[in-house]
Amino acid sequence: MDLDLARGLSQEANTKIVLFVMDGLGGLPHPGTGRTELETANLPHLDSIARESACGFTVPVGTGITPGSGPGHLALFGYDPLAYNIGRGVLEAVGIDFDLRPLDVAARGNFCTIDQEGRITDRRAGRISTEDSARIVDGLRAIPLNGAQTFVEPVREHRFVFVLRGEGLSAAVADTDPQAEGVTALAPRATSAEGESTAALVSSFIEQAQPYLRDKSPANMLLLRGFARRPEWPAMGEVFKLRAAAIAHYPMYRGLAKLVGMETLPVGPSLADSVTTLRANWDRFDFLFVHYKYTDTAGEDGDFERKVAKLEEVDAVIDALVDLDPDVLMIAGDHSTPAVMAAHSWHPVPFMLRSRHARADECDRFNEVALLHGSLGTFPAKEALPLAMAHAGRFKKYGA
Amino acid sequence: MDLDLARGLSQEANTKIVLFVMDGLGGLPHPGTGRTELETANLPHLDSIARESACGFTVPVGTGITPGSGPGHLALFGYDPLAYNIGRGVLEAVGIDFDLRPLDVAARGNFCTIDQEGRITDRRAGRISTEDSARIVDGLRAIPLNGAQTFVEPVREHRFVFVLRGEGLSAAVADTDPQAEGVTALAPRATSAEGESTAALVSSFIEQAQPYLRDKSPANMLLLRGFARRPEWPAMGEVFKLRAAAIAHYPMYRGLAKLVGMETLPVGPSLADSVTTLRANWDRFDFLFVHYKYTDTAGEDGDFERKVAKLEEVDAVIDALVDLDPDVLMIAGDHSTPAVMAAHSWHPVPFMLRSRHARADECDRFNEVALLHGSLGTFPAKEALPLAMAHAGRFKKYGA
Repeated sequence: MDLDLARGLSQEANTKIVLFVMDGLGGLPHPGTGRTELETANLPHLDSIARESACGFTVPVGTGITPGSGPGHLALFGYDPLAYNIGRGVLEAVGIDFDLRPLDVAARGNFCTIDQEGRITDRRAGRISTEDSARIVDGLRAIPLNGAQTFVEPVREHRFVFVLRGEGLSAAVADTDPQAEGVTALAPRATSAEGESTAALVSSFIEQAQPYLRDKSPANMLLLRGFARRPEWPAMGEVFKLRAAAIAHYPMYRGLAKLVGMETLPVGPSLADSVTTLRANWDRFDFLFVHYKYTDTAGEDGDFERKVAKLEEVDAVIDALVDLDPDVLMIAGDHSTPAVMAAHSWHPVPFMLRSRHARADECDRFNEVALLHGSLGTFPAKEALPLAMAHAGRFKKYGA
Repeated sequence: MDLDLARGLSQEANTKIVLFVMDGLGGLPHPGTGRTELETANLPHLDSIARESACGFTVPVGTGITPGSGPGHLALFGYDPLAYNIGRGVLEAVGIDFDLRPLDVAARGNFCTIDQEGRITDRRAGRISTEDSARIVDGLRAIPLNGAQTFVEPVREHRFVFVLRGEGLSAAVADTDPQAEGVTALAPRATSAEGESTAALVSSFIEQAQPYLRDKSPANMLLLRGFARRPEWPAMGEVFKLRAAAIAHYPMYRGLAKLVGMETLPVGPSLADSVTTLRANWDRFDFLFVHYKYTDTAGEDGDFERKVAKLEEVDAVIDALVDLDPDVLMIAGDHSTPAVMAAHSWHPVPFMLRSRHARADECDRFNEVALLHGSLGTFPAKEALPLAMAHAGRFKKYGA
């Protein structure tokens, strides 16, 4: 749904919506058994919710499109992931919970290895350890720039975030990363006139970094890409008139939630921690997004049995969400991560919506085969929040 | 479907399409039985039609959007209800079958109550009786304006329609209704330069109305909103090459049909009357829209049993439509009105299309659960007419 339309329809109400996201939820059959992770797992509580929910599948971005974490979540927050793009640098900054301000310019950084002629021999500097990388980053922080403050923050292995803060900055700077080996790094170049002073600052930074990095092989050079500004998107509170909060342990998901104006609540790593935080903040919010990471991690590791076990861990706790009796409870995923693929995939994602006004259907189990009998069919993930808004009495009638 | 595409595809043919609309058709389960109105009703004839039809659900406007009568019907007539908006004033005029002409400007009027300082104390004038309201309206008709003719028509209780007819009028006039109490009515203000002379006419009308209304408390003031012109939309005859007629007893639906160029046929209040009118006009038209109101009325009243009874009344007569053997018979609704909600809702609406070329499916009953086995799935209501056009041999091949 277009956000202007959503803005016009939404109204306040004394109702609560919970969005519970199992990261990488959907799967594919195990070749040995012919059953998916969800079909294999013993999920009595999720199956019970399925019997009283409207069931179906979400398509995160579009048919055949495998989403990253950003688009997969933005869609569930009601934002069309094809219209609301996040620059690479911003996603990286957001991913480590860096407090990116509206005028900052962020880029993704890689340490790399160059030979004596300056040609790149390894774009990832042999994937140096996170600890070594963090030590090298420390030295980069000391580089002074005229007219801008710099932040260099380690991410993991050879990756870091580079942020410029100051007056008159612009993201109109091309990548220095040639995305190839055997060639030299590119000079920072403005992609339009307004990017020229920023490109000059980036050049100065790299020139000063080079002598410092010279003896840090394999991390003897750096590459920057995806210069971007924090997007100024309409906030969920303004568009949907929801007091929205995120209960997410991983920085990436907190960061994404912040981009759409959610308040992020401190929470421990376990699902029990999430439930505790949910209960403690129940009265303060209308919309609570709870993120569970480990289904995706197991899927990405190609560990079918662990993904089954993680689903069963969720099942053991899920009634705590039901017991809070939200007006709308959505059980969803940001994308599928079939263990047999050990990667994100494009497959539609299991979804169910429990509400007093949910239309009954013949789906009585929470898995990829049973959900085909659901009343919701297969629909764009960006429509999930509008659907929840309707069930929560938070959308006015359209037209008289 | 885009109307330009429809225009390019449509061709004349010697075939007939009947669109039978049960207003507020879809429902939700009764808490006592777990069965919807359609599941509860005994509908042997509709079930029989389901067995020989392609079945599914329509989404009137969009996921989660609860439509009013206007958008719900426009979609079934093939017009995208998000693109074809009807101004409030026009809908109100159309709703009483007022013969609104292309250059007229119409507004919705409310009588209201004001205190001695002119502050609104009741935006609806205590919902005065329709009779009292009609008497006060009579007096307003006598107000003369320089350069425009005025029409004031009672609607119901405190509501009336205000229409200006003349040269050089514009709908660019802001509401005088502040949509709040404790404040004074707003002065009529042009929202662009072209609205200035019309705003002056409206001001003159209100100034002359004030002394007349002074002793009519609680209806001692009036508010106007939703100034609008009759939209100039492409007619169904031109776009779809259909000679189209509406068989609708309620003025609102006749009015909506007129906006898309249908001829409206005189008809009595019962379904038997509709069938009589249908038979009498069978040869003159290619497309006949038959409207049945009472399913919605029962739903809006929250009367589950009466809605069930009204569905059974339809079932008893429906074979009269089948017996006329239209090339395409669509059984549809403009929106759901679940009796348990006593209101319109966003839920997809039961739909079936009977035609010699309809693709068979496993749906053997006409209700919200059985229809999930239909071959049409859940699709936008605005695609129903294109579907009928195809089944009626009225769309050419696209491309060679």
